[in-house]
Amino acid sequence: MTPTERTRLRREHQRGSYDPQSIYDILDATTQCSVGYTIDGKPYVTPTFHWREGNHVYWHGSSASRMLRKATDAEVCLSVQIIDGYVMARSAFHHSANYRSATLFGRAFKVPEEEKAARLDAFVEHLWPGRTEVLRPMQPQEIKATTILGLEITEASAKARSGPPIDDDADYGLPIWAGIIPMTQVVGAPIADPRNLPDLAAPDHIINFTPDRTSQ
Amino acid sequence: MTPTERTRLRREHQRGSYDPQSIYDILDATTQCSVGYTIDGKPYVTPTFHWREGNHVYWHGSSASRMLRKATDAEVCLSVQIIDGYVMARSAFHHSANYRSATLFGRAFKVPEEEKAARLDAFVEHLWPGRTEVLRPMQPQEIKATTILGLEITEASAKARSGPPIDDDADYGLPIWAGIIPMTQVVGAPIADPRNLPDLAAPDHIINFTPDRTSQ
Ligand SMILES: Cc1cc2nc3c(=O)[nH]c(=O)nc-3n(C[C@H](O)[C@H](O)[C@H](O)COP(=O)(O)OP(=O)(O)OC[C@H]3O[C@@H](n4cnc5c(N)ncnc54)[C@H](O)[C@@H]3O)c2cc1C
Ligand SMILES: Cc1cc2nc3c(=O)[nH]c(=O)nc-3n(C[C@H](O)[C@H](O)[C@H](O)COP(=O)(O)OP(=O)(O)OC[C@H]3O[C@@H](n4cnc5c(N)ncnc54)[C@H](O)[C@@H]3O)c2cc1C
Ligand code: HEM
Ligand code: HEM
Repeated sequence: MTPTERTRLRREHQRGSYDPQSIYDILDATTQCSVGYTIDGKPYVTPTFHWREGNHVYWHGSSASRMLRKATDAEVCLSVQIIDGYVMARSAFHHSANYRSATLFGRAFKVPEEEKAARLDAFVEHLWPGRTEVLRPMQPQEIKATTILGLEITEASAKARSGPPIDDDADYGLPIWAGIIPMTQVVGAPIADPRNLPDLAAPDHIINFTPDRTSQ
Repeated sequence: MTPTERTRLRREHQRGSYDPQSIYDILDATTQCSVGYTIDGKPYVTPTFHWREGNHVYWHGSSASRMLRKATDAEVCLSVQIIDGYVMARSAFHHSANYRSATLFGRAFKVPEEEKAARLDAFVEHLWPGRTEVLRPMQPQEIKATTILGLEITEASAKARSGPPIDDDADYGLPIWAGIIPMTQVVGAPIADPRNLPDLAAPDHIINFTPDRTSQ
């Protein structure tokens, strides 16, 4: 992808990349994003889930959602961030973080009525392969109540840091503990709904769940 | 806090709250936020760290940072989100997430030169109590190169979901596994910089680190 005036990294630009695969990998590694949009020229940010299909990213909610209404056919900025660790240096100044993040810009569009069911199925199937088959089928009024926005991935940047702290040369001689405190998001053991029917085992897609779809 | 036109929750508003302590607790439970701002009327979102002191939230970076320059004396939206679990229902429609999130609006201000060192010390000390004492002291040119923005917490909302899925009455009779897949951010074992001086033990503030400052 060609960097634009909006996506060209100035600060720590050596940590940036613009190739689609790097951006896909970061988008696919987390379900959570922050959608930025404006109302009357003022900035708003809403946390929401996203999923990727090919060169598009999607998110969903109520057809009455203010965010979805204001973002339709309007400029948005979709941001994802993953923290991999705290970078502990020998000076306060050189403390940092290891992270992966992606920033996407563009005009969000409304997914047409007749494609919504397929997009929602993909959302569920990407996270829990096989689940759409076992669920009570989606109802027309449920699909109707739902709006899905899409964004083509045409103007985007990735930025990532990894590795040990980078200290001033002189500071490496100081007896100060430096290094990385790793951070990870972990999936806990599933908690069955007390109202589940008796003797219902959790299916594989629950037991093997990971929100990281990078390897799929 | 009184809800305003910007912060009054419409969707699932029973999950909202406006009391300062609820908002403080969510801000303090994570270091990561997303700052929304505008350039030429268009939305931008930048992931960054924040910390809270009393009724103010702060974030920092290069004095040359575009985000910090554009957000100074301008309207911003600061959003934090924490995912606690995936809510697995008996229909696709009722899938959801357990989460805690906070949204703050207001005009960001630049922390005056003479207060910057104290704010940066507080940032470090909140996360790693005692660390400022052991670090190579902050240098005047490091403080000069750094801009800190502040936001008074006057217009803000919290929203949180917890508990089991909420399904349609009829669907509770179906043999479909429903429940919660818990999600947590965990701190890994510290990784010493290969360039640390020999026999340097990790101090307590490294070993006992948690990014959650709720209980402090
Ligand atoms: C978990 C986390 C914590 C962070 N904490 C801090 C912090 O405390 N202080 C700090 O200064 N910075 C922090 N950053 C980095 C921050 O996101 C910005 O990259 C940095 O502040 C420079 O901002 P800028 O507006 O000057 O960027 P510029 O380089 O001017 O931005 C120009 C364009 O580059 C791209 N870009 C910039 N940053 C990113 C990014 N992170 N990911 C993808 N594309 C990007 C965007 O397209 C943006 O429009 C953090 C990042 C993450 C993921
Ligand atoms: C991890 C996570 C995942 C989510 N995934 C989805 C999703 O996939 N689909 C979906 O529809 N929603 C999702 N949400 C909820 C989403 O953030 C919004 O609350 C919801 O979409 C309603 O948006 P709205 O613009 O209609 O809100 P409105 O109720 O119209 O917003 C009005 C005001 O209420 C406040 N507010 C709204 N949402 C929040 C919030 N989350 N936290 C704090 N204050 C808030 C803000 O001040 C906002 O300006 C998720 C939230 C989290 C934290
Ligand atoms: C709690 C300790 C701190 C942490 C976790 C931290 C974290 C970060 C992170 C993640 C970045 C972004 C780097 C990037 O763009 O990849 C950053 C940038 C920056 N930090 Fe900090 N920081 C800390 C303390 C400080 C202190 C004490 C100072 C000043 C004395 C400082 C000054 C800066 C500056 C100037 C930048 C901008 C770098 C650039 O864009 O060129 N930081 N910090
Ligand atoms: C992968 C499965 C899904 C997940 C994880 C998920 C998650 C969420 C979350 C977290 C919310 C926000 C609730 C809140 O505001 O507190 C939401 C809202 C919503 N979802 Fe989903 N969802 C999923 C699938 C679906 C499907 C398949 C549909 C439609 C058939 C749907 C329709 C809606 C609607 C209409 C809302 C808005 C609720 C409201 O604001 O009143 N979701 N979803």
